[in-house]
Amino acid sequence: MKSNTISLEHGAGGEVMQALIGDIILKNFRNKSAGSIGLDSLDDGSTVRLENFNSSSELVLTTDSHVITPAFFPDTNIGRLAVAGTINDLTVMGAKPLALTCAVIMPEGFPVHDFEEIIKTMDQTAAEAGVPIITGDTKTVEKTALDSIILNTAGLGITDSPVRDSGLKPGDRIIVTGTIGDHGISLMAHREGFDFDTDLVSDSAPLWKLIEPVLKLRTPQGEPVITAMKDPTRGGLANALNEMAEKSGAGILLEESLIPYKPAVTAACEMLGLDPLEVANEGKAIIGVKAGFEEDVLSILRQHPYGKDAALIGEVTDENKGEVILRNRFGGMRYVDVPAGDPIPRVC
Amino acid sequence: MKSNTISLEHGAGGEVMQALIGDIILKNFRNKSAGSIGLDSLDDGSTVRLENFNSSSELVLTTDSHVITPAFFPDTNIGRLAVAGTINDLTVMGAKPLALTCAVIMPEGFPVHDFEEIIKTMDQTAAEAGVPIITGDTKTVEKTALDSIILNTAGLGITDSPVRDSGLKPGDRIIVTGTIGDHGISLMAHREGFDFDTDLVSDSAPLWKLIEPVLKLRTPQGEPVITAMKDPTRGGLANALNEMAEKSGAGILLEESLIPYKPAVTAACEMLGLDPLEVANEGKAIIGVKAGFEEDVLSILRQHPYGKDAALIGEVTDENKGEVILRNRFGGMRYVDVPAGDPIPRVC
Repeated sequence: MKSNTISLEHGAGGEVMQALIGDIILKNFRNKSAGSIGLDSLDDGSTVRLENFNSSSELVLTTDSHVITPAFFPDTNIGRLAVAGTINDLTVMGAKPLALTCAVIMPEGFPVHDFEEIIKTMDQTAAEAGVPIITGDTKTVEKTALDSIILNTAGLGITDSPVRDSGLKPGDRIIVTGTIGDHGISLMAHREGFDFDTDLVSDSAPLWKLIEPVLKLRTPQGEPVITAMKDPTRGGLANALNEMAEKSGAGILLEESLIPYKPAVTAACEMLGLDPLEVANEGKAIIGVKAGFEEDVLSILRQHPYGKDAALIGEVTDENKGEVILRNRFGGMRYVDVPAGDPIPRVC
Repeated sequence: MKSNTISLEHGAGGEVMQALIGDIILKNFRNKSAGSIGLDSLDDGSTVRLENFNSSSELVLTTDSHVITPAFFPDTNIGRLAVAGTINDLTVMGAKPLALTCAVIMPEGFPVHDFEEIIKTMDQTAAEAGVPIITGDTKTVEKTALDSIILNTAGLGITDSPVRDSGLKPGDRIIVTGTIGDHGISLMAHREGFDFDTDLVSDSAPLWKLIEPVLKLRTPQGEPVITAMKDPTRGGLANALNEMAEKSGAGILLEESLIPYKPAVTAACEMLGLDPLEVANEGKAIIGVKAGFEEDVLSILRQHPYGKDAALIGEVTDENKGEVILRNRFGGMRYVDVPAGDPIPRVC
């Protein structure tokens, strides 16, 4: 049944949000495409094809608002999250980031010093990926109207061959670029004052420099080795992999023992009854790779600090089309369901 | 003295906001340009130059967040404001809009029906200008965290010759495309329950189709007839003209009797002690025109419904560099100061 008012799950990255987007946004926007990938694809961004552009390249446009609270969390702040998030959306589309926007909304009373820290962090994060921030907007609202700073970053990128989240083919290998659940669990622990006796921090990071070299890999037949990419943010691996499986019309079989977790994430999830597969990541990518090239991809990824824990975690199957199956260390199988939303609210 | 916390004026479009942007944002972002116009210009958008692009064109990128309250106002809603605002930022840069993004943030409890109305309005407004909305983002926050829906729209455009807000030269004529103050005054009247016995409504409108034909005008020497453009949103004509004068290093002399106002705006401003020059507009452009071509421009503008009240309101002077002077109907002169901010909060 359709609800009459918005709930938190309508913006939590899971199937409730997907339904709202389908029922309201996709139904009512009539002109949704300017290139080979439009809004209907619900990919991490969409493309713009230019006339008079002397190549097969397309531009990629993406946008993300960030409502995370608190704005400062281990070991960074909303500024890094915003810049990295948008760079990563371009990156998983296979697009070199060209330029970012920065739109800020603050409640009156927000500390100017905190604002400056956030701006400095945005600059540092953008510098890591070599991306300029070229335009912006600043708005304020009454103290009673908003509880914390909100950032929106839109990004423009360019690619010769866009990477879709729908490109998986049976036989492809599934790689994840590092440990899972760090961002969501570190945020929740910080927010709730839990002490897991650990230095767990957000994994928020711009992935362009990590991913750029693997985008160049080609098979002997000249085809890209990377078949699909997505960043597992809200709703975590569970949501991202289900989207990839459904859009690709293929199944995904995960080996639970191969999925890299930090011990603190495993412990926290067991203690709190959370499924780490549903927890948000902010510096990770899921990569579909043609069989036989997984070691090439892994060895490149592992040379970069953000990819040192990269791991092969599963493969794409002809069976169970549109479904994600997890095989545990004892051989037992279970479906990984599409989460209703991320179990931790306002995580990004 | 610098303040320690954010005030409403830090986001109100006047000199307090300019100071914050200069002190915090421009100072700390090091990589701010991807083309001929970067963040330091604080123009309505910035440009991106593409390698391998077979022309002299540049892309234009812009972003705007919209925090107007209430979300529905005479005779439209925040959806029209957001789409028109971003199309207009591209338009006053001389750029044909190619694609928009749509990022939504809603508090739980927001009516789904209202959300759908807003989305439909965004679609209609984008359709007017023939611009697709190609990518988006949806976030939700707790009921207590935010008082109304927030939209961010970023826009991508393309231009052969960007129009700056800094291009005015002494002798140029200043044209405004219609009546001044309609948006801010209609919003305030609606919000406060004032009844001016009038059908005054917001002027929110996408201006691309109005402005496109005048962008093509050339002098016999082949130079563009349009020398500068800006849309007078927060802080109204007073803020936009002061920015244009200062950035152009020229003076502006306005003839008060030539500025077009609806009678209800004049009456409301007199009653409430507001300066209509400081009130926000959302469907108007200020255009600098080479002397001798003002009638050509006006006659084109007046053929379009959004330009029917277009008027010549002043000229650019060699004296009073960086200043805006208003000559009243009795010949008296006064400076038009840069407003601290828009007198009506959360107007866009």
